[in-house]
Amino acid sequence: MSFSFQVEATSGAARAGRFVTPHGVVETPVFMPVGTVASVKGVPQHILEELGVQILLNNTYHLYLRPGVETVRALGGVQDFMNWQHPILTDSGGFQVFSLSELRKLTEEGVQFRSHLDGSLHMFSPESALAAEIGLGADIIMAFDECTETPATHARTRESMELTLRWAQRSKQYFENHKQEVPWFERETREHGSEQTQALFGIVQGGMYADLRRESAERTVEIDFPGYAIGGLSVGESRETTWEMVEATTPLLPPDKPRYVMGVGTPEEIVRYVSMGVDMMDCVLPTRAARHGLLFTSEGKVNIKQARYVRDESPLDPKCSCPVCRRYTKAYLRHLYASGELLAQVLNSIHNIAHYMQLMRGLREKIKRGERLDVG
Amino acid sequence: MSFSFQVEATSGAARAGRFVTPHGVVETPVFMPVGTVASVKGVPQHILEELGVQILLNNTYHLYLRPGVETVRALGGVQDFMNWQHPILTDSGGFQVFSLSELRKLTEEGVQFRSHLDGSLHMFSPESALAAEIGLGADIIMAFDECTETPATHARTRESMELTLRWAQRSKQYFENHKQEVPWFERETREHGSEQTQALFGIVQGGMYADLRRESAERTVEIDFPGYAIGGLSVGESRETTWEMVEATTPLLPPDKPRYVMGVGTPEEIVRYVSMGVDMMDCVLPTRAARHGLLFTSEGKVNIKQARYVRDESPLDPKCSCPVCRRYTKAYLRHLYASGELLAQVLNSIHNIAHYMQLMRGLREKIKRGERLDVG
Repeated sequence: MSFSFQVEATSGAARAGRFVTPHGVVETPVFMPVGTVASVKGVPQHILEELGVQILLNNTYHLYLRPGVETVRALGGVQDFMNWQHPILTDSGGFQVFSLSELRKLTEEGVQFRSHLDGSLHMFSPESALAAEIGLGADIIMAFDECTETPATHARTRESMELTLRWAQRSKQYFENHKQEVPWFERETREHGSEQTQALFGIVQGGMYADLRRESAERTVEIDFPGYAIGGLSVGESRETTWEMVEATTPLLPPDKPRYVMGVGTPEEIVRYVSMGVDMMDCVLPTRAARHGLLFTSEGKVNIKQARYVRDESPLDPKCSCPVCRRYTKAYLRHLYASGELLAQVLNSIHNIAHYMQLMRGLREKIKRGERLDVG
Repeated sequence: MSFSFQVEATSGAARAGRFVTPHGVVETPVFMPVGTVASVKGVPQHILEELGVQILLNNTYHLYLRPGVETVRALGGVQDFMNWQHPILTDSGGFQVFSLSELRKLTEEGVQFRSHLDGSLHMFSPESALAAEIGLGADIIMAFDECTETPATHARTRESMELTLRWAQRSKQYFENHKQEVPWFERETREHGSEQTQALFGIVQGGMYADLRRESAERTVEIDFPGYAIGGLSVGESRETTWEMVEATTPLLPPDKPRYVMGVGTPEEIVRYVSMGVDMMDCVLPTRAARHGLLFTSEGKVNIKQARYVRDESPLDPKCSCPVCRRYTKAYLRHLYASGELLAQVLNSIHNIAHYMQLMRGLREKIKRGERLDVG
């Protein structure tokens, strides 16, 4: 088996479990830091390991443009490329095509777009996006979907959802025919003694309409994937709407498959999604906020640029055991940020990732003890 | 004794030894990475320790402007401020005043300058610069000097040298009267059982004239300091001229005191200075070059942005044992640099510092074995 998932404990709707991939085991619920171009901005891989990061997300769109799929394939796939010998997930590229690129043209076939780097013209279809994801070789890959714009009418959202469902079928078809082309197929198959491929997850769409979310969930599950993502959220809608959409979807996803809400969230939101039965999440927030001096602590958010910290000799978070909180004062972190030092971005990113990892460890432990999660 | 130095081995003019400061021992010859504002750009302190960095340089001018001397003093001095519990050296601020600030006015009293940050008006005299250095609390501090511009006539250079000599006297006078004001005086004195203060080094000037360098050396030595720097070099002159000036100076410096050439150099230059009997050096080169993708290896310089490395699976330097060379390929480092990733600057800086530290370890070992240094 290339991929398997077991739920080991539940508390209300929340679940603790683990999934196995060709590059290792992941305990859930899990938060996946984003390493857009095969690098978590500012944090070396050995520090990510020390912080307990289990799985990273890479962006297919970015790696497809630079250094290119064939280069990553020649270098053994994303795990060897960045020497992260642990699981990696790639998104399908759909979200970035719709949010970053220019002059796109959407057809039944796929989406034509211009690179945000050099304006060159490209086409992502379910087939070409999957070919890219197979060439990059992440352990978990995503079906190619249309991320519906917001706001959108019910009719327009249904149309988009139907397209995503047809693309999901085509994604699966392409994957089944080409899954042995993953760069590490032979090596991992030899090592594991059974055929090792990637796991292709489906993506539920349906915009901000609960009925469409439910229909998308049911029909995506009919196609049958080893895991399901809820996509097209956190795109500008209110948090209450996001929660409502997740709440409408999760009960219709099979309990024995992992559930992944894409692109979320704050620590508080993470707790809420986990309490709804979500197993996987990813977000640029911890690293992006860190680079802007916004730090997450057990006592709430800290805006490290504030003058009140100029002579504050206390650690950023006295309850945090990360290398930043063990070594530096708020005064020093404030100084680094105010001085525009590179080290500010590095240390702040290390701390925020550590905070998320500690949060997830705490949630897993609570669920295993059968405790209710405090969703505030 | 707050400061002591012993030569333990020599090979030709080259010496290997050690000096002791209130915050620890340093083996010489030593290269000091530059942590301008109490941070080596992009490299956390625990990684500097892992690389074998023994002593850092901080810039008085920068820390005086931000976060300010009284803030650093209140936080225990630079060692506590950045939690680097090892020796630190601060320059006098003179070089930065002459190279970075605007609208300066030079008098016998000192130099008036405007901050490069906000244009505010300030004055550095031997007394105020020393007060700043005592307040910052580095283990080794430098007399306030005028860094003579280049080119300069013999007469102008003599005038500047004479001013530096008068300022050296005033620096020493101020230091003797105020050295107990260093922030860690009481704590370190209690812990060591003898009075612990900083060590004030003199600076030899004399521009690009060997006769003035010799005169400056003799008259600075007459003032009597526990160590001597050769300043005002590497300011645009040819490397041959720099070597000639160092060669003219070192024989006149007492053999039982450390010799420090400020602001140098490339790995090849480092070897040459050590072969001339220099014990200490500092330079922004390893970290600045790293941020521009220029990497030092046992096989020469590597410009990592070159397209030839796109699929190069070899480590940057197969002879280097640093965490970057142990983990990543040239292809990955090239990709990070080409993508403008923060991690490129971090990893490149780690490697270049590691390269310098390995170079210095090799030189110390060679000298201890009595081997000649290969100056190319």
